[in-house]
Formats: sequence, C-alpha cells, structure tokens
Amino acid sequence: MMERAGLPRTAAVIVIGNEILSGRTRDANLPHLARELAALGIRLREARVVPDEIDAIAEAVNTCRRRYDLVFTTGGIGPTHDDVTARAVARAFGRRLVRDPEAERRLRTWYGAERLNPARLKMAEVPEGAELVDNPVSAAPGFRVDNVYVLAGIPEVARAMFETLRSGLVGGPPLAARTLLVLAPEGEVAVVLAEVQRTFPDLEIGSYPFYRQGRVGTHAVFRGADPVRLEAARTRLAERLAARGIETVRMEEDGG
Amino acid sequence: MMERAGLPRTAAVIVIGNEILSGRTRDANLPHLARELAALGIRLREARVVPDEIDAIAEAVNTCRRRYDLVFTTGGIGPTHDDVTARAVARAFGRRLVRDPEAERRLRTWYGAERLNPARLKMAEVPEGAELVDNPVSAAPGFRVDNVYVLAGIPEVARAMFETLRSGLVGGPPLAARTLLVLAPEGEVAVVLAEVQRTFPDLEIGSYPFYRQGRVGTHAVFRGADPVRLEAARTRLAERLAARGIETVRMEEDGG
Repeated sequence: MMERAGLPRTAAVIVIGNEILSGRTRDANLPHLARELAALGIRLREARVVPDEIDAIAEAVNTCRRRYDLVFTTGGIGPTHDDVTARAVARAFGRRLVRDPEAERRLRTWYGAERLNPARLKMAEVPEGAELVDNPVSAAPGFRVDNVYVLAGIPEVARAMFETLRSGLVGGPPLAARTLLVLAPEGEVAVVLAEVQRTFPDLEIGSYPFYRQGRVGTHAVFRGADPVRLEAARTRLAERLAARGIETVRMEEDGG
Repeated sequence: MMERAGLPRTAAVIVIGNEILSGRTRDANLPHLARELAALGIRLREARVVPDEIDAIAEAVNTCRRRYDLVFTTGGIGPTHDDVTARAVARAFGRRLVRDPEAERRLRTWYGAERLNPARLKMAEVPEGAELVDNPVSAAPGFRVDNVYVLAGIPEVARAMFETLRSGLVGGPPLAARTLLVLAPEGEVAVVLAEVQRTFPDLEIGSYPFYRQGRVGTHAVFRGADPVRLEAARTRLAERLAARGIETVRMEEDGG
C-alpha cells in the first residue's frame, strides 16, 4: 500500500502553532493544502501539528524532509517572540539564520523606513541560502530551503504564497476520485468492497458512512491517477451490489 | 519552554484517514479533542494525520505513546477493508488481535444475529488485553491499550466515546486563558510583548493578528494554570502599551 507504480511525488504538511493545539483556533491551512496538492498530483502522506517550540518544529521538519519529497510548513513567521519557525528550520538544516537583503528591501518598501522596527526586521531573517517565497498580501516573505517550503499561518497569506509556488511544483498526473453512493450501511457492503479492492490493487478505495433522511449509507471513494481504471472499479462495485439488490448512485466527478 | 513546573499531563492526537489527507473531508475531531483536553488540564502537545496504512499508524502510535502521557486516535475502526487501526495498534504493542467477547455481545445485541456478518464482527477485534471504550451511539466499541485510546472517526461517535472517558482522565488544573485585544499590529507590540513574556516565564503568551473594520490588530493570549498570574500578565501588557499610547480591550474570559 505504501508505494504504487506511477504514483506522484509525496508531501507532508507541518502546521505550527500553540493556538491549534489549545483548541483556540481551528486550522484552515491543512484542508486547503490537501486539496491543492491532490489537484497537482502530489500525494499528501502525513500532516503534523506542533507547538511554537524550536525543538519540536526542527524535529518534525527533519523527519518529514527526509521521508517525503516536499514539506510545507505554516505558521510562526511573524514578528513576535512566539514566531520561531525560521530559527527552527535553520537549526533543522544546521544553517545560520541570516538577514536576507531582498526580504529587508520588501519590508522597507511595505512599512516605510520609520515603521520598520527591529521586530518587523525579524521577518527578514531566513536560514542561510534560503530562497524567498513571495507574499502578495503583506510583503513579509516565506522561504524555501531544499525541499521545505515555509509559509505563513494566516490562511489568506498562506494561500497567496502557495499560489506563487504552484507553477514550480512538479507533481504527477492529478489524483482523480470517483464516488459511488451506496444505499446500504458499510457493514453490508464491506465484503464486496474488499473484493473490488483486491481486483483493483492499483487504486485506493475508501469507505465512508453517511446518514441521510434517517437512512444509513456508504460513500465508496475510488482514488487514483487513471480515470479509466477508476470508472471501471466503480462500475464493478455498482454491478456487484446490484446483483445483491443494493441500490447505488454514481456521484458527480470530484477532484480528490 | 518544553516543561514548566506544575504543568499537567501531556497528550497527542492521531487522526487516521486517507480522506483527510486527500482533502475530501475536513477533520473535526482534532479541534474538538483539543478543546476538551485543555478543559481537563491535559496539554495537547502534538497531532498527526496519517493514512489508513498499518505501518504508518503503528509508527505514529509507537512514537507518541512513548513521548506523551496519553494518546487518542480517531478513525479506522469500522467494518471495511480500509479500517486497519485495530490491527495497527496491535502491531504497535506487539500483541495479537483477538475477538473480544463483550464487544461481540454488544454487536450481536445491536445488529441482531442475522445482520451480524463477518465484516461487522471485525469491529469486535481488539489487541489482546485491550479494555473497551463504550460507544453510546452505534454499539461498536473503541478500546484502550495502556495509554492509547482508540476512538471512532465519525465525529458524533468520537465525541460520545470521549464523554464516556472523561471522568477517568486525570488532568491537572484546567489550562485557562486570558486575551487582550490590542489595537495595533503585531509588529508594533512585539517588543513589549516579549518583555512581558520574559517577566512571566511560567505563562505561554501567544500573539495572533486580526483584521477588523479595515484595522489591523493583535490578540495577545495568555495561557497557564493560574488565573491570578494570567490576569497579572494581561494587566502588565495593557499598562505597558497604554504608556505608549496603544489602546487595548480586555476580552471576556475564555477556556483555552
């Protein structure tokens, strides 16, 4: 199940912020990045939420950057004392933290000389050798070191940063999905579903229960790169269930 | 920053499910558990999202159960082929997967003998020696092995299961929070905020920008177990900012 032929590159997302772990804030960056990466044919394999602590961030970055092709972090790159992501990523790579001249220039343009105080200048500090990630919303850039992309935590900024990266991110064929709505509970379709999974080992078939108008049903979701295979698997399941008198509905195409 | 005197027990949450990583489903269990654990005085230190794969789940469980006092997993305990959490947790602990007689009895009562097929019986399989976690919604139980609590993925079921555990979860004093709304951007309060953090090293002070009616402001959030200290720190920040002509508003008390 770990790797299948023809599958695209892999990614991890690291969400950084005490406010997520305390329950104060509900993260919006992971759902967004998950959808965007799937559309690019990049397979999100893991996500982590870690606190605003240098050791915790550095460890997550080091584990994930060695294990996956791409890593995206969100959060912790602002001007305050609890913004420690740049320092943590520098530590993860064993690099010095340096003030980037181009980042400083952008901050100076955005804030003006008189409002560019030391706290804001901290946002120009990046690990040595990092490449800036543009911030079309509020100037202070993210950055990239090797395969690690460091984005802002504010969702509008994180999204805008990701947009600037999109054309440079090489994925595989977009992961497509097909959904079959099954008018029976999971427990009554599980055996047939497992048979279809064995017949189509190249696809990933997920099963998700739902409740609607007092009835229990199942969404069978087929994921993979080849739409022809997806359609074949969905048709197979529909036929096998029809033979057992179980009604199904082909859902509209969806993206992931 | 890692451990402070008097702090409560630690926890991790492991969200299991391809549907979260593909962006199809937005996880609702982590935000809920984060709030509930904070209210119990249990400190959520990390969260992970992993796919429905035995190796990935087992590795996350083994890392987290050794590092934190409590681990909660959600997802992957249904009747279908992609529900592999029980098997993964058994592997993590090096235990056999066995059919639990009490779990089987509950399933038999819920479904009736004729609808209790082999797929549904799979939901009675737990690692040897596991203790069941009651499911007041739909019978199929979760389970606990040592410090690892295995809950359902469906949010209503996960919540109901957590409720049955609440009285048995020993935390510390509930983590409280106080918020000061600051009518100035983060970059203009960062220096003062860092000073206050140094004066109150026992508290965790977070800074979160917001935008309202075209103005940029900052929420300074003080977290800790002692409300008196929280109030003292908030008052200190308000006074220090007032001396600089920056207006602040004490927010209503909140829970985390």
